[in-house]
Amino acid sequence: MSSHLPALVVVLTVLLLVLATWMVGRARGRYGIKAPATSGNENFERVFRMQMNTVESTVAFLPCLWLATQYWSPLFAGIGGLVWVAGRVWYAFAYAQAANKRGMGFMIASAAAGVLLVGGGVGVIRALVGI
Amino acid sequence: MSSHLPALVVVLTVLLLVLATWMVGRARGRYGIKAPATSGNENFERVFRMQMNTVESTVAFLPCLWLATQYWSPLFAGIGGLVWVAGRVWYAFAYAQAANKRGMGFMIASAAAGVLLVGGGVGVIRALVGI
Amino acid sequence: MSSHLPALVVVLTVLLLVLATWMVGRARGRYGIKAPATSGNENFERVFRMQMNTVESTVAFLPCLWLATQYWSPLFAGIGGLVWVAGRVWYAFAYAQAANKRGMGFMIASAAAGVLLVGGGVGVIRALVGI
Repeated sequence: MSSHLPALVVVLTVLLLVLATWMVGRARGRYGIKAPATSGNENFERVFRMQMNTVESTVAFLPCLWLATQYWSPLFAGIGGLVWVAGRVWYAFAYAQAANKRGMGFMIASAAAGVLLVGGGVGVIRALVGI
Repeated sequence: MSSHLPALVVVLTVLLLVLATWMVGRARGRYGIKAPATSGNENFERVFRMQMNTVESTVAFLPCLWLATQYWSPLFAGIGGLVWVAGRVWYAFAYAQAANKRGMGFMIASAAAGVLLVGGGVGVIRALVGI
Repeated sequence: MSSHLPALVVVLTVLLLVLATWMVGRARGRYGIKAPATSGNENFERVFRMQMNTVESTVAFLPCLWLATQYWSPLFAGIGGLVWVAGRVWYAFAYAQAANKRGMGFMIASAAAGVLLVGGGVGVIRALVGI
């Protein structure tokens, strides 16, 4: 069962991206910023940056999730992944409210991704040197 | 044979990203916007936003393709993926022409990705609960 | 052993993303650009664009790495991947210095990714037509 936990994290990660995109669309309407403009209102820019940062961190997170699943443990990868998603959802809502609230969710998510990277990375190095 | 269809979709997705990047480079020349600037001309900004949106949606799409391939059906994943790529190519050319033309390609691609997410997501949940 | 080389490339790719993000954070401090702002200083904008471009190219590179690993050769995929990472690290530091220095690292990385795409793509087509 736990071997499918990373796949559940992938589903939740995609839903996180959908959430972030939806929040940008809503902010476009609310603050009257029409595409392709991405600036002109501080509140909109914050939501827009939140989405960009969510996408950027997903690009780093999914490889970490894969590394941890393949070279460490699907269970630990799944648990770390759930923590990452939770931290990222917190970050999304907090950053949309105020720039200085974004720290805690960001740190939790970064720590979780870091654990996956180290756990997976150690496994990769052990596999490469054959121990 | 159909088990390799998702891999073909991955090849086409990379080519889509190359196309979008090439369109931005061409627009830089055409409208005289030198890197690192990304604003100053409405036509350039539209092409630039098209590329950003293509990258963002690829970050969400490839996990959906993987989920559908692993937890639903490589054939259906491949077909849905081909529809996604077609919708995204349409979106790229239409958005480069005018912001209000970008809707249809976007909707087709989003619907295809949504089908892959639901198909794959149902498979993940069934695998997790063991039915 | 060489079958784990692509995984090492994935680890290094994540570290490249961490490096790029760290460089943006440092540039925010150095040039006094507070989030969510991403403009207002040419030096900051260059570092910011470097990071964006790194993320964008990672989104295209990792699928190429996967294609080459699965449909060509893990060894060649790993070697090409190491070249890509090296070109991208060069690009990151060079672009942070001056916009016109970014060409060589970019070209090396693009060539490496192109080789992986062609090598993997040929393998996919051969698998699809069954030869």
